[in-house]
Amino acid sequence: MSDSTENGLKARVILQQCLHARLQVKPPEEGSEAEWVEINRGMVIYICFFKGATEDIIPKMVNTLLNMKLCETESGKHTSVLQLPGSVLIVPQATLGGKPKGKGMQYHGNIGKDEGLKLYSSFVSHCQSELLTSRNADAVTEVRHGTYGNRQVLKLDTNGPYTHLMEF
Amino acid sequence: MSDSTENGLKARVILQQCLHARLQVKPPEEGSEAEWVEINRGMVIYICFFKGATEDIIPKMVNTLLNMKLCETESGKHTSVLQLPGSVLIVPQATLGGKPKGKGMQYHGNIGKDEGLKLYSSFVSHCQSELLTSRNADAVTEVRHGTYGNRQVLKLDTNGPYTHLMEF
Repeated sequence: MSDSTENGLKARVILQQCLHARLQVKPPEEGSEAEWVEINRGMVIYICFFKGATEDIIPKMVNTLLNMKLCETESGKHTSVLQLPGSVLIVPQATLGGKPKGKGMQYHGNIGKDEGLKLYSSFVSHCQSELLTSRNADAVTEVRHGTYGNRQVLKLDTNGPYTHLMEF
Repeated sequence: MSDSTENGLKARVILQQCLHARLQVKPPEEGSEAEWVEINRGMVIYICFFKGATEDIIPKMVNTLLNMKLCETESGKHTSVLQLPGSVLIVPQATLGGKPKGKGMQYHGNIGKDEGLKLYSSFVSHCQSELLTSRNADAVTEVRHGTYGNRQVLKLDTNGPYTHLMEF
């Protein structure tokens, strides 16, 4: 058994720009309401790690994703989420690792839960640092993120999702 | 110059399940308000065709996408959008064909506009036929779709987007 997917992929990411996005981070329980995080203008990052992914890919991934021109300005010019400047909502999304087999999807290439949680946490931290470093004093930008392993109840409001796929 | 992308891909599709989705099909103009289409429970299909894609791939693509277990029942069991049964919202999304170059994305692998419109229209028709054929008399399911070439202003409400990537 190889320790990585056959094509050597370590992570798959889908990016969508948003005007507002709201993600449940704690489901409702008896006696307590659901908890949500939200961002205004910015980028939603859906992320899935594959077997073989390691900590050393995180800084480059984050740097690439936050500096690529994956957003649009008001006038339709392409720009990065850092330059927009916009906020970031990170959504763990294991289904992105799915491979069709018959009429079902299989997720055998996905990283294990413990390792995945470590990488996810590191990814979130690196996004927070990068956003903090490049913070524009005039704009309120923030990093929000879902709870790894939970159902990602999401509400998204876009002016065109401008969906991109990036693989690492 | 080859007539297809280097890896032979003809189409890239992102699937998300939704509780409700609303897509602008005509922007507001002086004297007229924006027009929208919407679906309730079902699946959003973001689709992009590459150079070399031809009409003959459409029936198989549609059949695969509508019959794959890419949705969840109330109890969390995996099922297809036809069996759910749910509605379908089709969103043309050329940005899915993007390839990173430096800090920008390039779309050189994307199919031309005229050919793309033909394939998109055919894809929509095939989805409509399949949904009609398998229609459950007790459920109201429908196919709605965006206007090819327009900005796809989208509002999405999910109970977990359950995002999948499929390539053809």
